[in-house]
Order: sequence, then C-alpha cells, then structure tokens
Amino acid sequence: MRIDLNADLGEGFGPWAMGDDTALLQIVTTANVACGFHAGDPAIMRATVREAKACGVAVGAHPGYADLAGFGRRAMPGVTVAEIENLIAYQVGAMAAICALEGHPMTHVKTHGALGNACADDDALALAVGRAILAVDPSLRFMVMPGTATDRAADHLGLCPIREIYADRTYADSFNLTPRGHAGAALHDPTEALARVLDMVTNGHITATSGKRLPVQIDSVCVHGDSPYAVSMARHLRAGLVAAGMTVCAAGAP
Amino acid sequence: MRIDLNADLGEGFGPWAMGDDTALLQIVTTANVACGFHAGDPAIMRATVREAKACGVAVGAHPGYADLAGFGRRAMPGVTVAEIENLIAYQVGAMAAICALEGHPMTHVKTHGALGNACADDDALALAVGRAILAVDPSLRFMVMPGTATDRAADHLGLCPIREIYADRTYADSFNLTPRGHAGAALHDPTEALARVLDMVTNGHITATSGKRLPVQIDSVCVHGDSPYAVSMARHLRAGLVAAGMTVCAAGAP
Amino acid sequence: MRIDLNADLGEGFGPWAMGDDTALLQIVTTANVACGFHAGDPAIMRATVREAKACGVAVGAHPGYADLAGFGRRAMPGVTVAEIENLIAYQVGAMAAICALEGHPMTHVKTHGALGNACADDDALALAVGRAILAVDPSLRFMVMPGTATDRAADHLGLCPIREIYADRTYADSFNLTPRGHAGAALHDPTEALARVLDMVTNGHITATSGKRLPVQIDSVCVHGDSPYAVSMARHLRAGLVAAGMTVCAAGAP
Amino acid sequence: MRIDLNADLGEGFGPWAMGDDTALLQIVTTANVACGFHAGDPAIMRATVREAKACGVAVGAHPGYADLAGFGRRAMPGVTVAEIENLIAYQVGAMAAICALEGHPMTHVKTHGALGNACADDDALALAVGRAILAVDPSLRFMVMPGTATDRAADHLGLCPIREIYADRTYADSFNLTPRGHAGAALHDPTEALARVLDMVTNGHITATSGKRLPVQIDSVCVHGDSPYAVSMARHLRAGLVAAGMTVCAAGAP
Repeated sequence: MRIDLNADLGEGFGPWAMGDDTALLQIVTTANVACGFHAGDPAIMRATVREAKACGVAVGAHPGYADLAGFGRRAMPGVTVAEIENLIAYQVGAMAAICALEGHPMTHVKTHGALGNACADDDALALAVGRAILAVDPSLRFMVMPGTATDRAADHLGLCPIREIYADRTYADSFNLTPRGHAGAALHDPTEALARVLDMVTNGHITATSGKRLPVQIDSVCVHGDSPYAVSMARHLRAGLVAAGMTVCAAGAP
Repeated sequence: MRIDLNADLGEGFGPWAMGDDTALLQIVTTANVACGFHAGDPAIMRATVREAKACGVAVGAHPGYADLAGFGRRAMPGVTVAEIENLIAYQVGAMAAICALEGHPMTHVKTHGALGNACADDDALALAVGRAILAVDPSLRFMVMPGTATDRAADHLGLCPIREIYADRTYADSFNLTPRGHAGAALHDPTEALARVLDMVTNGHITATSGKRLPVQIDSVCVHGDSPYAVSMARHLRAGLVAAGMTVCAAGAP
Repeated sequence: MRIDLNADLGEGFGPWAMGDDTALLQIVTTANVACGFHAGDPAIMRATVREAKACGVAVGAHPGYADLAGFGRRAMPGVTVAEIENLIAYQVGAMAAICALEGHPMTHVKTHGALGNACADDDALALAVGRAILAVDPSLRFMVMPGTATDRAADHLGLCPIREIYADRTYADSFNLTPRGHAGAALHDPTEALARVLDMVTNGHITATSGKRLPVQIDSVCVHGDSPYAVSMARHLRAGLVAAGMTVCAAGAP
Repeated sequence: MRIDLNADLGEGFGPWAMGDDTALLQIVTTANVACGFHAGDPAIMRATVREAKACGVAVGAHPGYADLAGFGRRAMPGVTVAEIENLIAYQVGAMAAICALEGHPMTHVKTHGALGNACADDDALALAVGRAILAVDPSLRFMVMPGTATDRAADHLGLCPIREIYADRTYADSFNLTPRGHAGAALHDPTEALARVLDMVTNGHITATSGKRLPVQIDSVCVHGDSPYAVSMARHLRAGLVAAGMTVCAAGAP
C-alpha cells in the first residue's frame, strides 16, 4: 500500500523564512511550493525546487490569493471566478518555468489557504482552477479534498486527482476542513493524528467530527510546515505509516 | 521587404489603465505584454492577449523589475544575475500560461525599461535572460537590441533573435538607447522618426547620435504606447513603411 | 445655508493616474486624499495636497484596505477590528505628515470603498476608526454616513462629524449605500442627482430607495472622481447648489 | 558617562518574524521600528511599540526604501530627492500615529539600510530626510552617523542629533560603513566589538579601517537585531559598557 506525504514549503518571502524546509524535505515525498502571491518569490521558489530535487521530493505549484500580508489565509470574496482562473494560471505557469530552470518538472497543483477553502466549497471556483491547470499542462495532477468541489472539478475536467487528507485538521460535514480558529479545528498530539491518519488511509474513508463518513481511496497525507511542532509531527507520521507497512512515496505521474 | 511593428501593451494595473491599447492593436503587428512586475496583472494580461489574438497581433512576454511604483524604469543595481534569471523565468512562464488560456501562444520575450537597459549593457545579465527563455521554451525568440549584450546572448545561446530598433529614441555609441532624461533621448516629430526608421530599415544599419554606424538587418520597429502622441506616431510610421513598399507583419516563428 | 462638496482625489499610483483631479479641484471644496493602501503614494499625496492648497480646497485622509489591485473595493472580512485601528492610524498619520510638508493641515478623515461600507455597517469597526482618528488628532472631523455606525461612532467618541450624502448613489434602509453592482445603485443623470441632493440638503433628510426617511442636517455632498462623467456631474451639482442660494464651502474646523 | 544602546526592531512582515525582539528589548534602551516600506506593518509596529513601552525602551521611526523583497538593502539610485522627502515624512507620520495609539511618543528617526547608506553619502538626500523630520515634529532627534551627510544635515537644520556608532561594522574614510559584502565589513567576535566600542565611546572618536580618526562625542551604539548572534552580542556589549562604569540609558529628549 502506497501513500504520499505532502507539505507546503517555500513559504518565506524576501529576507524572511518560514518553517524548517530542510528538515521537512528529509521526511515528506511531495512539496507544494508557494508561488509568490501569498508567500514565496522567484529566488525562494528556485531554491526550494533545487533542494527538493536533491532530496528526491516531487514538487507542485501551491498558488494562493495575492495577499502577502495575510499569508493567503484571509477570505477574499470579491475575487471573481474569472480572476481565480487567471491568477491560478499565472502562478502555475511561473512555477513551471522555475522548475524548468532546475530540470525538475512539477507533478501537481494544490491551492493554498483561504483560496483552497473557497475552492473546496464552490464548484465554479474549483472548475476555474481546474481549467487553468488544464491550460498550462493537462498532465498535471490536481491535489483535491475528497468529497468537495475540487474533487468534483478534477473528475469533471478529466484531471487526475491526488486525493489528500490532513493529518492535523478535523473535517466538517462538507468534508472541507473545520475552519481555523474554531474549537477542535487542529490536532496537536502526534499520537492522535497518526491514529486518525492510519484509520483514514487503511480503511479508505474520511470521518467528519459529526461522525459522517466518506468512503474514498486516499493518495496523500498533508502535514503542515509552519507550526512549531511541524517537523516532529511529520517524522512521527512517516514512522507510523512505515511501521504500518506502507510504502511512503510521491503520488507521482498519473 | 518585411518589417514588424511592436509596442508595449497591457501596462495598466488593477483599476488603472495606460495608453490606448485598443487603438495600437489596430496598428502594430506584435505586442509585448507586461507580466505583473512593473505593470500588468493576470486579468489585464489575459484581456490583452485576447484582444491581440482577435486583432491578429503576435504577443510576447515583456518582463521587468519588480517595481510597480517606478514602472520598472528605475535602475536596481542590487538585483543579482541569479535573481534576474529567476524573475525572467517566472514572468515568462506566467505569460505562457495566460496565453495558453486564450489559445494564442506567445512568440518572443522582450525585457522592459531599466532591466532592458541593464541587459543591453551587461553580458552576464543578458545571458541570464537568455537562459531563462531557453528553459521555458527554446522556440521563443529573444527581442534584442542589435550590437548590444542582448544580441550577443541570443547568438551565444542559439536563441532566434528579433532585432529591433526604436522609432522615437536615439542611440549611444554602445547602440544602447540614450538614457531617458538626457537631451535628445526622445524624438517627438513623427516625420523625423519615420525618416530615421526608413533609413535604418532600408539601408540595414543603426546610427548613433555620434554618427557611429552598425550594419544590421532589422526585424522590428518599436513604437511606445504610453505617450500622448503614441497612437498618431504609430499610425504615421505604419503608413510610411507601407508607402515605402514594405510588408508590415509580425516577425513570427523562427 | 452652507454646504460642502467633497470628492475622492489623488487616486493614482506610481505612473498611473485616475480621474481629472485638476478639473475637480476647481469645483469641490473638500478633497479626500488616498493614502497609499488602495491608491495613492507619497508623491501623489503631496502633489494633491499642494494643488488643493493652491485651489483653496480643504484636504482629509481617505484611508482604505491594503488592496491596490482591487482599489480597496473588495470586501476583506478577514481584516480584524484591531488591524483596522492600526491601518487607519498608519494612513492618517502618514497623511498628516505629507500635509505638514505643504503647510496645509488636514481637516478630516473619510474611509474608502469596501472599508467604508464595512464601517458603516459595523459599530466595532467604526469605533476602531474613530479611536485611530482620536489618537492622531482629536480635532480631526470624521466624515460619516448619517444613520450608520460611523455616525454613531463619531457621537460616542466626541469626534465632530461631517455628515455627507452621495450625489450619485442610492440608499438602503440601513442608510448605507446600495452596493455597487446592484440595480439602481448609481445615478448617471445629473438632473436627477441634483434634484435628489437639493431635496436631501434643503429638507434635511435622507431617503432610502424604499421610501424610508432619516431626518438629518447634511454638511457635505460627495461627488465621485473616477467616472467618465465625474467632472460634468460635479459642475452641474455645484451650479445647482449655488443657484438654489447655498454657499458652497468647506465644512472646515469644528 | 551615559550611553544609549539601539537596535532595529519590528522587522517582520505579515506572518513573518525576524530576530528576537523580545530578548533585545531586555537589553537595548532604544528601538528603531521599521515603518512598513522595507519591513514592518501596522500590526507589527503597534506590537513593537507596546512591548518597547512595557520594557521602558524609547522608540523611533526607522524608515527605508519601499523594497520589501530586498529588505531595503538594495541601492535604488532612481529614487529622487523629492521622493525621499515624501517617503520619509509618510513613514515618520505613520509611526507617530501608531505611537499615539500606545501613548508612547517616539523620540527620533533613523534611516534604514541602503537609504541610510545613501543619506550618509549625499547631502541633498540627508537634508531631504531632515526636512521631512522637521515637518512632522521639530522635537524629534535625527539619529546620525558622525562625520557624514546626516550629521551635517542635522546641524544645518537645527535638529538635535543622536550620534551613533555601529558595534559590529567597520568604517570607511568617509565615516560611512564599509559596505556589506566587502571583506572586514562586519565583526562577529563580541570581545573585539566591545573593545572597539569602548575605545570609541570613552575616547570620543571613530576610527576608520585606514586608521583615519574623527573626534566626536558618541550618544548611542547600534547593535543589529537580525543576525544569529545578535542577542549574545548585545548582551555582551551592555555588560561591558556597564562594567566600564557607563550608564546605559536612552538618548532621550533633546
């Protein structure tokens, strides 16, 4: 049984760093690289892709809202569907070019933060993201949240999905994440996180906090890179997945 | 005898417009589209590519320094060669993606403003630009200033050049432009501009203000889009080139 | 009977202009100057203050969301009350400094666009704006929409209000503006706009589209600066107010 | 003998932090707070001012070039003297407003990075900075580098200077800093740094690397906040100054 472990990396900007990318690149098998709108800049993108290649880690574009000050985590309901299509294409194209400089082609696209949440809830937005991916390169996989609009968009457009779950977040009945800031939105205990991940991956389902359950084959587990406990959490999860007999490897080409 | 007429378009940002793109798209055969760093944003890029396609006008990426407030016209000597390579790749990749959304593939890359001036003077910078273009798509043409570092870089890297002259600017002995703000840097009289252009294009040379002369076959004539007299200047030039028996058409694929 | 005529000016950025500030400064008596977050930059702010002083036009700060690309017109529900207090103080302080350079002290503060709409609807936001104004200079007047949260905040904090109406917009029952994009949100006919303004100013009330009426003494009439018909609309209104026997002059110091 | 110890603080942006401000606020007596152009944002400025007040640390504005990506450390020769005057006033005014919210008035202004270097070398720039300070509040002190254009500007304009030296940097014959990146530009050994500082402060002179010497009474010693060894360096310097019998306290009001 194969499982991918993904994290959001390259989330610094200019002189500022975020998270311990070097440590995480020793643990995860896929890196979602910020593309300059909510975090990241051309130099950081390139350094991240280079380091990922050296570590044998797959890379993808991690586009977000143009909101550096808010790290792409603030809802921007005034950004239209047409604008989403354009800003996703722009960022994915930029990432493809940076990857070309390093000879490490990207494998997928995953939306970030508030844009990711909005796309999981809104079919029109998710389809706009999917169309942008298709236009840049139809062989790119779309990293989706199973049971949400992103999953449906991949299916509708014929994009190969990477179906991911979050190790340290809980789920609403829509199978979108419980919003940050809500009670019980995040898990901080690695043991609890691992138990949940193993249940979801081995049994092929996602369980909402209400108990509602979605049967689904899971391709990837997301660990967050920007919390103080990120590295130890990721290490614990990887060890636990390996101990459970799984092969931890990138989701790879369709 | 074929000649291309190019202009920098899509140079608005957010709510702000610059120049009369609609009028210029009726006159020029190639549009260099701002890529979001010194001007332009994903929505404006897309609208410009769409309108160019509808007008049968070829499009290219027009990357510049990340300096919106200065419109990319301020020297930034602290930006390194490595950073140039990255920011060119980023912008060219972004533009390729926007073009893909409209099904109107771009044909070339031309650097903007202070970055363009720096690249014309500095072989290391010009080669960095060329490497970024090569990485994104080796079939892209590099719009260069004949006799400068950009021309040498295209030659060295095997990129097909589009050799351009400026209709409304004069030349230093380096065959780079006389810097803006210097006396005699810009021409405002369409008759004088046309006479100079016809001399350079038909006789195959560029003449510096000192009288120094560079023999070269010219592929394209640049008209500026952001001056009050841009449209009438462009119209006058096009009419004059046609009257002189030339075929005004995009430089096109190599 | 005295009435002020105000417009939002200085709404360019870097190389980009918006509206015909020079023409409007011949018509209005108060200018709300963009402070660099949704539009404006230090150079444009200074030039606008200088020109306003030369025309005898009062100036105020016109702070908005940090959203240049969206011109401050996109809702940003993720910006907290504490952040609003800080970003208002920052922009108002910056404007005070630019005014000091020109020896033309500002008289008031008016929030822009989506931030203005949010403040009219939300007492906590309006109070945050008021506290920021108080901290910078308690003699500054707060330009408010009568009957909304901004009006209540000025009253609660002891700030002297400038109660304004919009010449070219209609009102919801909350006495906030009908949102842009809704049918009937904007008036384009100067005759109709003038008739409405005269009714509101001379009879001392604001009338919502439903017919609901708020009795209020009106200090100022806002004309928009960024529409194609802005200048002729403003001229028509000023002429109409003068013809009706009113003295058109800045609301001035408390 | 009194001596001030100053550091640049509040140099994060949005989600990103830089340096250990909390530790440094226990050591230094004056904080130069980034004002949003090269680093800092309204929320970070406010939190820094609040924490400084709680620690009894004086605060000043630390304005820089509008270059977030380059942290204000890249030369921007295209920014004019007039623009410098405006951007300094803007940032100083913004900082004054944030300080007003916390009831902790600022004491001084110090320019940052490449702008600081440019002002030390260029009388016209230094005077523009001084005029901006005067316009905002003539009681603000101008933190200057003795023997450079900033020192002369303070003198010429009647601004009370705070004459500072750098603990961990060496001096050129102009008494400007040896540029970063040049050999011997920075000191990393706290013992060596302390010895140099004690020599300069107790003997009242600054010594360039060539041996050239400027007699001057020194008011403040700058320690950098953004290097890995910043905190231990600052602690060592403070302890050494105290051990040498000096009173470490803010330079304070003129």
